[in-house]
Amino acid sequence: MPSEEVRLLLDRLEALECDLFCWDFLLTWNHSADELQAVLLAAEALEALYRANISTRVFDGGLAVSNFRDKSTRTRFSFASAASLLGLSAQDLDETKSQIAHGETVRETANMISFLTEVIGIRDDLFLGEGHKYMAEVATAVEDGFRAGVLPQRPAVINLQCDQDHPTQTLADLLHLQRTFGALEALRGKKIAMTWAYSPSYGKPLSVPQGICTLMTRFGMDVVLAHPEGYDLLPETLEISRKHARESGGGFKQTHSMAEAFREADIVYPKSWAPYQVMERRTALLRSGNAAQLDDLERECVANNARYRAWECNEQLMQTTRAGNALYMHCLPADITGVSCEAGEVAADVFEQYRLRTYNEAEHKLYVIAALILLTRFENPARVLRGVVERAAPRRMS
Amino acid sequence: MPSEEVRLLLDRLEALECDLFCWDFLLTWNHSADELQAVLLAAEALEALYRANISTRVFDGGLAVSNFRDKSTRTRFSFASAASLLGLSAQDLDETKSQIAHGETVRETANMISFLTEVIGIRDDLFLGEGHKYMAEVATAVEDGFRAGVLPQRPAVINLQCDQDHPTQTLADLLHLQRTFGALEALRGKKIAMTWAYSPSYGKPLSVPQGICTLMTRFGMDVVLAHPEGYDLLPETLEISRKHARESGGGFKQTHSMAEAFREADIVYPKSWAPYQVMERRTALLRSGNAAQLDDLERECVANNARYRAWECNEQLMQTTRAGNALYMHCLPADITGVSCEAGEVAADVFEQYRLRTYNEAEHKLYVIAALILLTRFENPARVLRGVVERAAPRRMS
Amino acid sequence: MPSEEVRLLLDRLEALECDLFCWDFLLTWNHSADELQAVLLAAEALEALYRANISTRVFDGGLAVSNFRDKSTRTRFSFASAASLLGLSAQDLDETKSQIAHGETVRETANMISFLTEVIGIRDDLFLGEGHKYMAEVATAVEDGFRAGVLPQRPAVINLQCDQDHPTQTLADLLHLQRTFGALEALRGKKIAMTWAYSPSYGKPLSVPQGICTLMTRFGMDVVLAHPEGYDLLPETLEISRKHARESGGGFKQTHSMAEAFREADIVYPKSWAPYQVMERRTALLRSGNAAQLDDLERECVANNARYRAWECNEQLMQTTRAGNALYMHCLPADITGVSCEAGEVAADVFEQYRLRTYNEAEHKLYVIAALILLTRFENPARVLRGVVERAAPRRMS
Repeated sequence: MPSEEVRLLLDRLEALECDLFCWDFLLTWNHSADELQAVLLAAEALEALYRANISTRVFDGGLAVSNFRDKSTRTRFSFASAASLLGLSAQDLDETKSQIAHGETVRETANMISFLTEVIGIRDDLFLGEGHKYMAEVATAVEDGFRAGVLPQRPAVINLQCDQDHPTQTLADLLHLQRTFGALEALRGKKIAMTWAYSPSYGKPLSVPQGICTLMTRFGMDVVLAHPEGYDLLPETLEISRKHARESGGGFKQTHSMAEAFREADIVYPKSWAPYQVMERRTALLRSGNAAQLDDLERECVANNARYRAWECNEQLMQTTRAGNALYMHCLPADITGVSCEAGEVAADVFEQYRLRTYNEAEHKLYVIAALILLTRFENPARVLRGVVERAAPRRMS
Repeated sequence: MPSEEVRLLLDRLEALECDLFCWDFLLTWNHSADELQAVLLAAEALEALYRANISTRVFDGGLAVSNFRDKSTRTRFSFASAASLLGLSAQDLDETKSQIAHGETVRETANMISFLTEVIGIRDDLFLGEGHKYMAEVATAVEDGFRAGVLPQRPAVINLQCDQDHPTQTLADLLHLQRTFGALEALRGKKIAMTWAYSPSYGKPLSVPQGICTLMTRFGMDVVLAHPEGYDLLPETLEISRKHARESGGGFKQTHSMAEAFREADIVYPKSWAPYQVMERRTALLRSGNAAQLDDLERECVANNARYRAWECNEQLMQTTRAGNALYMHCLPADITGVSCEAGEVAADVFEQYRLRTYNEAEHKLYVIAALILLTRFENPARVLRGVVERAAPRRMS
Repeated sequence: MPSEEVRLLLDRLEALECDLFCWDFLLTWNHSADELQAVLLAAEALEALYRANISTRVFDGGLAVSNFRDKSTRTRFSFASAASLLGLSAQDLDETKSQIAHGETVRETANMISFLTEVIGIRDDLFLGEGHKYMAEVATAVEDGFRAGVLPQRPAVINLQCDQDHPTQTLADLLHLQRTFGALEALRGKKIAMTWAYSPSYGKPLSVPQGICTLMTRFGMDVVLAHPEGYDLLPETLEISRKHARESGGGFKQTHSMAEAFREADIVYPKSWAPYQVMERRTALLRSGNAAQLDDLERECVANNARYRAWECNEQLMQTTRAGNALYMHCLPADITGVSCEAGEVAADVFEQYRLRTYNEAEHKLYVIAALILLTRFENPARVLRGVVERAAPRRMS
């Protein structure tokens, strides 16, 4: 009986110290481990309720606003799905169809779209030093509006990917690991290889590797970050990862060898990204609108990437992992050799073997987003979900 | 009392052999006559319930995803209306705002957008040999995802117009005919002239004439297809139409004379389309990106069309139909002489006389789409609608 | 207890002569003062219910269609919020994604999108002589469709800003004034300065000043319209304002001095607009597609504007208002000197002082739109809201 399973999850949720009410969720490292666990528990409860055909409509009207400053399919549908799951109307803020100026007026726009808004989900990952700043600015604006009584409720700002972190992805990844290994506690001491991999494209965001390193080190995992020389992540995220590893009894190591990272790994996460120094140059060029130099930079980077075509997750490397059987992870879409590109991040046979599991990994994201809405918008989310269980309204008639 | 009318419809629906549950709806000729009748009955029941102010919300959350690969007003609003009617949140997959690659990744995208999705409606009618193939690919992908347990439900893929068929249009047309003539049985032996008509534009899809010929021949109608030489439909759809006519005791004849088609017709459906040979050339040129040759082809076609400006549905021709009083049909928008163009498919006086009836014809589409969702997503749709009747929740307060 | 407050509002609503059922709302001056008050009362009731966490879902499905022919953030979100508040699904008619032709087919499109539609909100403010005409055309089309039985309900057409009026803005402004001064009656004799102000941009619509002058004169206010020579409003709106002032015992005066307008004013509304003569020339050039002359016109206008940079609402001017303490109003976004532009409509210190109050002003718009939907779509809106109070369903669980 699913309601029994859900009740146990809610008991555990209630036992945690979680203070997300009337708050935002921008960077996992600004939240306690209890809060992160609360997100996972609420996500699991929502997923169990959905699969048991119990309606989790906790709102009867109200908006869930999304603001995608970069293209998105997975996250866009995850956000819309989470809104529908909870009874909110999804409304996209398409800046090309509005008159939004830069700078000072973020404050105004944030309030103008929020009179009936429970959550604002933002994706802003193109420019280094921008995305998180923008989200924080929106959050400050709605906080001010709420305190002044202008907004009848405090919309939660949720990071759907910024220049620093991608928390809804990495928490979905964490839930995937928990499911695969049985429990969060079982992750302790497990080796995860977060490694760069070759891609013919350039300019991929750094938020996923940064998010994985900073998050997985909190749960006692042995994180090994591997990339060719020059493909560095933001130094502050490395610092945070080291600190987390020290505190949790886990590990955080860097290497320039993919082989070393894979050796005896329990989990591998091979994924391309651009060096943060390149992103910094690109950000400056984009700001100055220098198209010729941007082209030069792209050519230089693609050429540099090409030196590391050997950084591919293939069967041979997989054989070197723990029992030749590590869990392969990816945030999707992956660059698959011979499928989506000539040479890419992962060999087709490896990907195919794990393909359905990467779909499971992706599915969690919508429940993580819904859980974040629930935890930020309700003072006692466990009680709300108990009410949902008692109401037992079917999501679909039968 | 509308609920009595609805109960009778549901009795008839229950008596049919309908096996659409967990299935798609792509081409009418792949479904049994019972299944097609079931669609009409469910559509009628939904329309009666709406007009009686009874809420037909059978879902409490969940997505209805649309993917329009061509411009659309009528179908877009019909799909959104059907979603709202049943309690689903409409979500458009706008490929320009996502990172969708071609080929292999349709499989992935289809699953990524489907974790909470009950239906995916697709319009893809621009390229011959493409639309149906794409829809079938999406259907296979979600079937695989569902079987593997990745998707908690099996989203139905519904054809909102492809290169071969336009089932939601032609089923709405069939419902219109049933209403006009009293019953499906009354259509037996009725002559319907599906004829080409002149338009100053080129490249109109073939799906409507193909859909009309293949569908109306199943119900014992005497279908006459008329077009100038060279304006052929896809040969396989002609073959299917002939077979249907043989099986149902109806007729299927081709002619190059509009006058012959109109003579003693009970129904006329004059509409422009491009020859399939032209569409094949256009598809090849679009694929190779040859803009100059595309322009040449357009000029050639428009010039060729101009040779057949006489193919206009006008009062004189209408006088030759049964009692001078045939039912005029059109999927809209029509090219109306002197109104939307200098010379077009239909004379203004004829169109004006039937204008409101073409609106009635169009209205059915939304209920057909809703019926398709209902039949594909519920094992026992009649029971679900009986539950709706018993619940008797008002759609709007009063 | 909020329900007591709401009951009092509904008693007052019921006492008014309001005949908006099955009607449109295009220009405030075509509606009685009772009808305008009814809008305010219904808006207040809806806002009180929302803040008291009582669900105002009066529809269980159905569409709220928006058609923005100009960019919009505030109004777009207000409309979507109003739809969500009442239980309608918002659906945008994006003309770039549809095949909408001009002229004759507005009639058809209006019906095609309306089979399940309760309201069509339109913004069309770019071309003088166009916006209102288009809205009236849509209204006639759906009226015809409803009378002919094609549409099961009569969708209300609501003006979200046209070339003549901006009723949802000005009614929100009126509600703001009522809140600020305690009652509509308290506005009698109050002086409001509707004045032009400098902006570096050109081509801003005239609908707000025209709407303010025509509306505020109805409630006995002393309206002073100030602008530089040549920045005239549509003559017919001046005529209406004069007539309203005569009838209500208020005043309507024009001046070319901002200082005179501000002197002893109780309320100031400094806002840029383009002269109607310029808008007429622009409309003609836009129609003929004369890009070079359009550029010339823009240069000429911006240069002309620049002669009136002194028309800025600053602290010195504010000191001349009643007790140096007039209420500053703006429809937002404002051009703020040193913030959003080098020199603009208002000094930064003045704006900052009133900033949160302009947000309050803006908030009312969504409730005004919801009230308009309620009054146009229900024969007895007070009874419907009493039903809502009795049902007392929480908007969000707790």
